[in-house]
Amino acid sequence: MKTPRFAPIPASLPATVPFVGPETLERQRGAPFAARLGANENGFGPSPRAVAAMAEAAGEIWKYGDSTNHELMAALAAHLGVTPDHLVVGEGIDGLLGLAVRLMIAPGDQVVTSEGAYPTFNYHVAGFGGVLNKVPYRDDAEDPATLAAKAREVGARLTYLANPDNPMGTWSEGRAIEAMLDQLPEGGLLLLDEAYVEFAPASAIPTINADDPRVIRFRTFSKAYGMAGARIAYAFGNPELIAGFNRIRNHFGVNRIAQAGALVALADQDWLEAVKAQVVAARDRIARIGQQNGLTALPSATNFVALDTGRDGAYARALVAGLAEEGVFIRMPGIAPLDRCVRISCGPEAELDLFAEALPKVLARL
Amino acid sequence: MKTPRFAPIPASLPATVPFVGPETLERQRGAPFAARLGANENGFGPSPRAVAAMAEAAGEIWKYGDSTNHELMAALAAHLGVTPDHLVVGEGIDGLLGLAVRLMIAPGDQVVTSEGAYPTFNYHVAGFGGVLNKVPYRDDAEDPATLAAKAREVGARLTYLANPDNPMGTWSEGRAIEAMLDQLPEGGLLLLDEAYVEFAPASAIPTINADDPRVIRFRTFSKAYGMAGARIAYAFGNPELIAGFNRIRNHFGVNRIAQAGALVALADQDWLEAVKAQVVAARDRIARIGQQNGLTALPSATNFVALDTGRDGAYARALVAGLAEEGVFIRMPGIAPLDRCVRISCGPEAELDLFAEALPKVLARL
Repeated sequence: MKTPRFAPIPASLPATVPFVGPETLERQRGAPFAARLGANENGFGPSPRAVAAMAEAAGEIWKYGDSTNHELMAALAAHLGVTPDHLVVGEGIDGLLGLAVRLMIAPGDQVVTSEGAYPTFNYHVAGFGGVLNKVPYRDDAEDPATLAAKAREVGARLTYLANPDNPMGTWSEGRAIEAMLDQLPEGGLLLLDEAYVEFAPASAIPTINADDPRVIRFRTFSKAYGMAGARIAYAFGNPELIAGFNRIRNHFGVNRIAQAGALVALADQDWLEAVKAQVVAARDRIARIGQQNGLTALPSATNFVALDTGRDGAYARALVAGLAEEGVFIRMPGIAPLDRCVRISCGPEAELDLFAEALPKVLARL
Repeated sequence: MKTPRFAPIPASLPATVPFVGPETLERQRGAPFAARLGANENGFGPSPRAVAAMAEAAGEIWKYGDSTNHELMAALAAHLGVTPDHLVVGEGIDGLLGLAVRLMIAPGDQVVTSEGAYPTFNYHVAGFGGVLNKVPYRDDAEDPATLAAKAREVGARLTYLANPDNPMGTWSEGRAIEAMLDQLPEGGLLLLDEAYVEFAPASAIPTINADDPRVIRFRTFSKAYGMAGARIAYAFGNPELIAGFNRIRNHFGVNRIAQAGALVALADQDWLEAVKAQVVAARDRIARIGQQNGLTALPSATNFVALDTGRDGAYARALVAGLAEEGVFIRMPGIAPLDRCVRISCGPEAELDLFAEALPKVLARL
């Protein structure tokens, strides 16, 4: 019996995994992590009202979720000052990025991103046969002008920018992104990943007309709203572009409990403000812990801090491995020169205490 | 400003929606349904232990789910008598079918299904540029031999069979599916959708070697396990084929609460048995209600019953609309000659009472 062959694109793909999850690492080391500070999850958690809504919704899990995400779309539209036609809700930004790439990219189409930026985007581009062009970071930040110049040079159909950026935590001013839109090639589309936008200063958020056909923006309930495990996010932009998602999305794909939780989380902006204050305090503390140990914090507009070891990738990798041995899960950028840094997610005091204890021990061993 | 054009395949797709959800219909009619018997959801619900596990997991929703679905995979492997390498967990059968089509189908590749079978499969095939070939039902059932003959005729890379079938509730004997595998073209793959398999007689379940490269089987927690809104299902088959999913799936795509619930639901086989008994009783009652009103029940190995009106699609559509006006949500097959039937999902006594009350009223008006 002949094993069926895959279609040409999947046949050409490696079996890569963009990220190894903490549960996998825990099984490898044979013990749970005491501090979970690696996946930019929000250890301060979602609104307790959202948790209660999710617990209650568990009793209705026999029903499919609303395929139109109607109530959440209406609430998001009001929140953003757009119409529901500008919006699509999906299974996390990862899922929505996959759909956006599928919507835009045929084999051989050009795509631009930054060397060391979000690998899951690259995974999707490869998955649909796109050709990735990478520009370097500039001063540890993604650089809108360089991205746009490369997009013009190669005639990119898609350009990816995370603002604020992961894995570095840095950000661009909103006006630089506004200027970038004018520099993209005609008919090119910017995918603006704003997963961390709620943690950013107002000046980092570009002012873009809701109907502007040059950009789709992506936001999520995974980070500031503390619902990473729920897999619910949204994209917004020009209605004609957004309508394309309905041609290919899984209409019943969003978990019903996630829909219930997101609706309540969005309504509880007081909780969001409190989380943001906790994140600011945690960022400061991570920077201080770094400083006390000879590591320099990069400025951050996210819920994590990149600490510069001043050494190289091998050193930083050893630091990540050493901290894991001490029960502290962190991650780091994958690519030089960013990989001289380690990345610590903001979390509750007790987990940062463990990080503060473990760091000097591990550094002493290196 | 030029609106970016979509890639050729999405550009060619209509903005179809495979199913209109009950929430959308409720908004259109301005009132909720009193009986939700249209989406083959399981109104008997999941194991109360699974509901409790999901409610508890809501408190941990700030964490991403385990990207490897490790615990659930181990439990499923034990349950099925296969290894985890034979398994992939994903966001419902809809999500997994989409991945399977993407894995196998390049534009122009031939695919075979039955005229009137699950439309979401067709949506995925169109979404990746596959060419759909449809064979008729035989005696209101999908026919493995006819499907295989068409697959040989056109050189199909994929053939789809739901056993038991949706929307008719009928089934093939397992040995007919075993025979079908030998009749497929060399290198062709059968996608065997077993969403309703827990409701089927043992003789309907084919005996297939776990390593057989000619078939991937799909099962779900949405139906018998009562967790449609959780979006969690699995596929199993030859490890080389299953490994392909890891090249393209969203590794962190499954909701953490769904993972927790599925694990407990799978463990509570006593609850499953109790649900199956309730479904058998509900099937019998739906058949009796039909008979009392001049409608003939088709045999069913699922959690729904197709009632033959003995008339045509227009009549059945009027019946569905009339029942909706009475607050009873049901659905019906979309295609002649199947569309002379209406489809009623099994549900608790109180909802079937409402159906029993409304049916003669609506029939009298037609």
